[in-house]
Amino acid sequence: METLSENACFGGIQGVYRHNSTSCRCDMTFGLFLPEEARDGPVPVLWYLSGLTCTHENAMTKAGAQAWAAEQGIALIFPDTSPRGEGVADDDDYDLGQGAGFYVNATQDPWAKHFRMWDYVAEELPALVFENFELDSDRQAITGHSMGGHGALVMGMNLPARFRSVSAFAPISNPTASDWGRKQFQAYLGDESPDWLKYDATVLMKEVGFDGPVLIDTGTKDQFIDLLRPEALAQAVAARRQQAVLRMQPGYDHSYFFVSSFMEDHVAFHAEHLYA
Amino acid sequence: METLSENACFGGIQGVYRHNSTSCRCDMTFGLFLPEEARDGPVPVLWYLSGLTCTHENAMTKAGAQAWAAEQGIALIFPDTSPRGEGVADDDDYDLGQGAGFYVNATQDPWAKHFRMWDYVAEELPALVFENFELDSDRQAITGHSMGGHGALVMGMNLPARFRSVSAFAPISNPTASDWGRKQFQAYLGDESPDWLKYDATVLMKEVGFDGPVLIDTGTKDQFIDLLRPEALAQAVAARRQQAVLRMQPGYDHSYFFVSSFMEDHVAFHAEHLYA
Repeated sequence: METLSENACFGGIQGVYRHNSTSCRCDMTFGLFLPEEARDGPVPVLWYLSGLTCTHENAMTKAGAQAWAAEQGIALIFPDTSPRGEGVADDDDYDLGQGAGFYVNATQDPWAKHFRMWDYVAEELPALVFENFELDSDRQAITGHSMGGHGALVMGMNLPARFRSVSAFAPISNPTASDWGRKQFQAYLGDESPDWLKYDATVLMKEVGFDGPVLIDTGTKDQFIDLLRPEALAQAVAARRQQAVLRMQPGYDHSYFFVSSFMEDHVAFHAEHLYA
Repeated sequence: METLSENACFGGIQGVYRHNSTSCRCDMTFGLFLPEEARDGPVPVLWYLSGLTCTHENAMTKAGAQAWAAEQGIALIFPDTSPRGEGVADDDDYDLGQGAGFYVNATQDPWAKHFRMWDYVAEELPALVFENFELDSDRQAITGHSMGGHGALVMGMNLPARFRSVSAFAPISNPTASDWGRKQFQAYLGDESPDWLKYDATVLMKEVGFDGPVLIDTGTKDQFIDLLRPEALAQAVAARRQQAVLRMQPGYDHSYFFVSSFMEDHVAFHAEHLYA
């Protein structure tokens, strides 16, 4: 693992690291914020999964999360959204290929060789960071934005007992019924199949739910809201009697101005359960 | 109008009053909490509509609302849930007749003569209280529990610009598709008809929505939750892109222990908009 940068940040350190990923068969870069408290021992962790077109860097520089994570004594991990590089398959569209991994293990060519973001985020990267940093694997939470909100929700429900709490900003909520989902699942996973369903938050909410608290914010003026399908997930949450807070935030769009406006709430929400 | 009682309460006055209702053609009793600030001029108003079997008294004594209303300088009005008395039609079941008016104008015998709770709560009682107390009709909000949550939501959406904010505790959310609704609408309104739809919060949310903020709490262990159908309203709220906060509160049931636990949040929510 190589250190690309480390900057003092809110009393802690914002680092960027690169390593060779066995899951993705390429170099992968991630951001990690360690609060001051990590000098004295393992701290709780909040994973932040990013959206389409993002790298590890967008949320690290635009979400304003470090201020609140420092206040709460929580580490933040910012994985990349896909494998990258010259030898890695790609597509001309912004919503497929590099920057658009959708947090799945691709099974179809040309994607299957590198696009194993599920294994990377669920297994390989956790093993790496818990080995190398003062992080407490018993106290993890997860959040994300858009495609990353999708990732956070499906990781939360597919990995029982891994995360104490799950939240999302404007998540892609029902990808098997959206153009943000069907196209990519077709490419990465092949024809519609049971494989699709394990990556769909609405389907998972109906079938298994999450054993803990859930917080989801979506802007009423989100320009992509028809693709997000918050109504499908809202129905499933209430029908399951899932512990949850669903907020439709008036006037907000899909940007990081929206994410940063509610980041304090999300970090405080996770902190309440990470320190319970 | 007759004063039945007035008690000092959190620096203000909790009163109970009786008057002859022209809408309901019988005597009606209501509770009114006036905060200390009402001595100096009109104060904002939060209407609280109660649930099945309740009178004006239940929320007045069990919801703990006066503490928070006093803190915020807001008046509370607690109407009864139906006409009452020996000459008023009734039914042996708890969920029809006296104590179960469902906030509709009945059109069917034997109910049509007295059961005009829509007119009473929407028109007659407001005229009476704004005439007789230091209340600001330009600053009104509405909430309620169960059948009263239904009442609050349908009043909010059917009376545009009347209320700045609407909230509900465990509302009957989709009565035209529930045994808490179909039986009563059949009795009060006759065979299924467009009349039913104007008293259904989910239908109204789909068709008109509410031009302002909405807050709804429901307990995940609510013993009547299958009758409430929160999933139908949650779907409609998100599909409309309605400004709203929907909370599924873990472990809470349908009782006033649930209502009182979140009353502070609801009063603060309304205060934010009544004083905006």
